Amino acid sequence: MAHGAGGSVMQSLIEKHIVKHLGGAIVDVPLDALDDAAVVHGMVLKSDSYTVKPLSFPGGDIGRLAVSGTVNDILMIGGDPLALAMGFIIEEGFSLAELDKILESIRKTADEVRVPVITGDTKVMERGALDKFVINSSGIGQRNPLLDQNFVEAKKGHTLTSEWLLDSNVRAKDKIIISGTIGDHGIAVLSAREGYGFETRIESDTAPLKSLVNGMLRAGGVVAMKDPTRGGLANLLNEWSQKSKIGILVDEQSIPVKEGVRSACEMLGLDVLEIGNEGKVVAAVTPTRADAVLAALKAMPRGEDAAIIGEATSEFDLVAMETVVGGRRIIPSPAGDPVPRIC
Amino acid sequence: MAHGAGGSVMQSLIEKHIVKHLGGAIVDVPLDALDDAAVVHGMVLKSDSYTVKPLSFPGGDIGRLAVSGTVNDILMIGGDPLALAMGFIIEEGFSLAELDKILESIRKTADEVRVPVITGDTKVMERGALDKFVINSSGIGQRNPLLDQNFVEAKKGHTLTSEWLLDSNVRAKDKIIISGTIGDHGIAVLSAREGYGFETRIESDTAPLKSLVNGMLRAGGVVAMKDPTRGGLANLLNEWSQKSKIGILVDEQSIPVKEGVRSACEMLGLDVLEIGNEGKVVAAVTPTRADAVLAALKAMPRGEDAAIIGEATSEFDLVAMETVVGGRRIIPSPAGDPVPRIC
Repeated sequence: MAHGAGGSVMQSLIEKHIVKHLGGAIVDVPLDALDDAAVVHGMVLKSDSYTVKPLSFPGGDIGRLAVSGTVNDILMIGGDPLALAMGFIIEEGFSLAELDKILESIRKTADEVRVPVITGDTKVMERGALDKFVINSSGIGQRNPLLDQNFVEAKKGHTLTSEWLLDSNVRAKDKIIISGTIGDHGIAVLSAREGYGFETRIESDTAPLKSLVNGMLRAGGVVAMKDPTRGGLANLLNEWSQKSKIGILVDEQSIPVKEGVRSACEMLGLDVLEIGNEGKVVAAVTPTRADAVLAALKAMPRGEDAAIIGEATSEFDLVAMETVVGGRRIIPSPAGDPVPRIC
Repeated sequence: MAHGAGGSVMQSLIEKHIVKHLGGAIVDVPLDALDDAAVVHGMVLKSDSYTVKPLSFPGGDIGRLAVSGTVNDILMIGGDPLALAMGFIIEEGFSLAELDKILESIRKTADEVRVPVITGDTKVMERGALDKFVINSSGIGQRNPLLDQNFVEAKKGHTLTSEWLLDSNVRAKDKIIISGTIGDHGIAVLSAREGYGFETRIESDTAPLKSLVNGMLRAGGVVAMKDPTRGGLANLLNEWSQKSKIGILVDEQSIPVKEGVRSACEMLGLDVLEIGNEGKVVAAVTPTRADAVLAALKAMPRGEDAAIIGEATSEFDLVAMETVVGGRRIIPSPAGDPVPRIC
């Protein structure tokens, strides 16, 4: 199961098997970059499968997830999502009423972000060959028209490895900004699946992030963006650190976590930094624009809890955290997301 | 199971549920067209899931199928495939050696057609939640540069509903041309799955059709193209007849079928017209260019058995066949492909 959990074990499967066989294409941003999406002929392409269990959970369902996840991955690399293709794989006997509910949710989310589903495919597997229902959601995007203007500020005294928002773009002194609280999605799904009766109702944050992302790019100075999905913030920061060959120091106290999520994690012995999110974005921003990007986020719906949580540094080359009790600890790349099948 | 079998039952699921909820996007070729792929901002987008059982069969495997199927759908609408995105969903415990074999086959087929896999996604489902392994393969393409030149001939005295190769483009007197024998893929998969010991070894025709398609477009006069996958030739001709509001008359004797496939169908009580193919293309061609397109096909590998099998007619509005024993019979839209999970 760890091979699908978004951490270092999955990374190794992808590098030793998938990239080994399929890598090497000469395109703008290839598979080998292992970034959020690929770029070919100036078009962004992304594909994701969704196997979340249960199919509905507080704050979302597999349909909302399938639209948001693919749209967000296109946004994260600097794309402007244009359209989606949806492949449905259905277990024989799956209820048409449940299918309709999921389709309605897809349509509602697609309308919310104005990215239509324009093609699809349906396959049915015999009873017992599939646990109910999975979706593959693919999308294309063009280069975000805000990107050039965003990079003007980012390029002042700053070398970029790419004029897309790649994981390899982070440079010393860049501020690390997160758009809101972490852990909500993973804990909401886990709680719905296992039937935990937490005192506080925890809702998934699943949402398309187009407005937030465009607001940040208008503020300018963003060099990298990524959503902390499988493997959470810990995995995201380690990917940036490794691909940008730089250290990242974050401040535990500044990382927003809802009280209910914090206590659920304590109760279950989970590290909130490793829990997956589906409606948050993390950006690395040139220091001169960090306050402007933060202010832009805070002024927007879903950005109220945004915070600067740390910065990149050339003093070391790993991810470390100043803890609330004082002292520093290393944040390792998680082996995988501790909660399986959250997306 | 019929809901996934590519015939009229699946058509009804798609129209009454999927198009009902997700249709209506204003793009060049939308979901509502129910064609081989969609077109947005001049880019072709296609997504397909592959659930074939068994994963390997004579003449191919799920990897070759996943590349060929998506590449072919992009070609069929008039696209020139640029790149693929692959989503893998794997059952916990699936052998890494088998995964490597499939990845090798994907790479080999992608290299053969020069369409790289540039991004992907991997999910793992727990043991028992998935029958081994499924692939989602999505792709993008640009408009085939041969299309304008092809349409010059097609437009002489001929109105087109679209300058893409849509199902709705077929007009009276257009010749129906097939690139080779039918039934090979479905019978090969069925035989591998059920362990039938047919006297003749039957091989799947799974292959990307880029060279064949481009050869036909160079000959010119092609107005519609489609690959006879789920539901076979019978489903394809009925889709054309319905969407173009025209009759189609085919000649049984001229439809190429390998002897082994014919006798397997007789033995199993299957109608070869309804069996799925994965390496064949059917084209509707302006009468003046039909011989040129046929000659172009016959001169190419995989096109040796090409034949003109009939023509469109305004005398009636359904699909009929002149049988080998004389007389005509109606070819109905099949309820579904008689062989499940062939792709």
